[in-house]
Amino acid sequence: MKPPAAPLAITLGDPAGIGPEIIAKAFRDSPAETTRCVVVGSAQALRRGVHAVSSGHQIPLPVAVLTDLAGLENVPPQCIPVIEPASGSVLPPVGQVSAVGGRMAAEAVVWAAQAALDGRIGGMVTAPLHKESLFAAGVAFPGHTELLQAEAARHCGVPVSKLPVRMMLANEELRTVLVSIHLSLRNAIDAVTVDNVLQTLQITSEALQAMLGRSPRMAVAGLNPHAGEGGLFGSEEATVIAPAVAAARSQGLDASGPHPPDTVFMRARQGEFDVVIAMYHDQGLIPVKYLGVEQGVNVTLGLPLVRTSPDHGTAFDIAGSGRADAASLVAAIRMARQLSVRTS
Amino acid sequence: MKPPAAPLAITLGDPAGIGPEIIAKAFRDSPAETTRCVVVGSAQALRRGVHAVSSGHQIPLPVAVLTDLAGLENVPPQCIPVIEPASGSVLPPVGQVSAVGGRMAAEAVVWAAQAALDGRIGGMVTAPLHKESLFAAGVAFPGHTELLQAEAARHCGVPVSKLPVRMMLANEELRTVLVSIHLSLRNAIDAVTVDNVLQTLQITSEALQAMLGRSPRMAVAGLNPHAGEGGLFGSEEATVIAPAVAAARSQGLDASGPHPPDTVFMRARQGEFDVVIAMYHDQGLIPVKYLGVEQGVNVTLGLPLVRTSPDHGTAFDIAGSGRADAASLVAAIRMARQLSVRTS
Repeated sequence: MKPPAAPLAITLGDPAGIGPEIIAKAFRDSPAETTRCVVVGSAQALRRGVHAVSSGHQIPLPVAVLTDLAGLENVPPQCIPVIEPASGSVLPPVGQVSAVGGRMAAEAVVWAAQAALDGRIGGMVTAPLHKESLFAAGVAFPGHTELLQAEAARHCGVPVSKLPVRMMLANEELRTVLVSIHLSLRNAIDAVTVDNVLQTLQITSEALQAMLGRSPRMAVAGLNPHAGEGGLFGSEEATVIAPAVAAARSQGLDASGPHPPDTVFMRARQGEFDVVIAMYHDQGLIPVKYLGVEQGVNVTLGLPLVRTSPDHGTAFDIAGSGRADAASLVAAIRMARQLSVRTS
Repeated sequence: MKPPAAPLAITLGDPAGIGPEIIAKAFRDSPAETTRCVVVGSAQALRRGVHAVSSGHQIPLPVAVLTDLAGLENVPPQCIPVIEPASGSVLPPVGQVSAVGGRMAAEAVVWAAQAALDGRIGGMVTAPLHKESLFAAGVAFPGHTELLQAEAARHCGVPVSKLPVRMMLANEELRTVLVSIHLSLRNAIDAVTVDNVLQTLQITSEALQAMLGRSPRMAVAGLNPHAGEGGLFGSEEATVIAPAVAAARSQGLDASGPHPPDTVFMRARQGEFDVVIAMYHDQGLIPVKYLGVEQGVNVTLGLPLVRTSPDHGTAFDIAGSGRADAASLVAAIRMARQLSVRTS
């Protein structure tokens, strides 16, 4: 008999944001996807989310507080299992930055990261947290990625610099991995180096190999219009990108390019490539988001754990209203399951 | 009684490319769109295109050589009218760069530009020409845009610098106008100046006002990720783009932004804006091409004439095979008609 799939942890995110609501919606409306998922965070915050998405005539889904992962086997259906990583606090009001919210969000992420690194769960799906709440709580990291890098480095006994990560954005039609993320466009151009492009290819190949069960066909976008048009519109294709692609190929990776940026995403969408390596943030994010952000999933590649997240923030402006869309979270759960099945 | 619409000229492009074929297909398969259109170029090249797209059991469309535009009234249906701007030459072989092909392509463009500037036609649709053929023919301009700028400047008696142009790319879902085109990304960043952004807004507003019959809602994209995130990832939004938007608004234009680049195209597609001003080539072209290039139309804005073109090149590799797709040309004809109706 096949053993049951490893559980997935869904971290609650900032309790003042839409995290609790979209998690409640996911459990209510997507029972297949949320089977063997456990929420990590404040049960009280989760109950507030359940109520926010329950209209008058519906019975709100009950929340079952577990003391450990073993309890997951005995949770009845139509019930949301939650593990509380810390003793309760007074909940912050919805829609507001707070130190309490930041602390609760961070505690859940740390708990799930340790469980993932120890192999007790198959992966983690992180609901959005708020940078300012984290900062108010005195957390030394600006976001999920840095927190996870630090936990993984500690677990592996290596410095953080030995665990480079890349962001993959994916939806049903397109996957793209970014060489750099939150840099000005000028600085992003400077970050297009042979080392960074090659490292992106290596990280991407390893992660997608696990996900697809075969070597991924990686298309590398150029930096300049028409991929430089033979040097007329820029030299980075010849001096940086082509050498990185050649180095990757000499290591046996299935990389091609540099391709003209304005058509490479369309070609990937039509099935020619499994993933596009984008040279800067908007090159990759414009096509991923063009058809609507609802289904976008953010995947952190390069860490010794599976982590996905929905492609949106805490949405403080609509938190508590029950209007938030859970589609991106459900897509993130689905993708974490794919990654986890392959790697476990 | 409403006078008949002004005729449109379709220039044949490089006779060795796919221009003659896609024109023949457009007349054969899109009779409504090609009504009151006249081809400008070599009748012999056009006949070769007609034959390339006619399979055995079809009677090839006849080509009617006109001596002037007045003859257009008497062309029977199911017949392709053509005006020859120069006496015949021996046709160059398909699929090859040649001085003859470059010269024939340029002559057609000059004829149509003069007819458009004189008001004898409502606009021109240009099939693709080949830069190297133009160069081989000794034509002093690298492409359509520069040729048209020179003709328009001569017609208006002003230097070319007084006729700034911008490229608009459009399909059924999205319109985008580019601040710059064929520059390296580094140089494109330098071209994001208050003057260039403001001029782009002015040119776009005037052209789309004519097309839509109302003031267009123009969204200006940022240059950096998240439109700079308040200066964290770049300063051009604050120092350049916002002041240009403010100046445009003070002139009564309906401009907004700078908007985060990764979602502004999606928002325009969903109907929030009529056009997106893109800060560089690929920012605008990636989303326009993402859904497939077949329907893309290129429009030259800023000139005192209407000019559209399909969003592809001469495709020497498939020229003569009859396989080229006429969809983009037909879309370009449709758009030229819209622009011409409004402005005539």
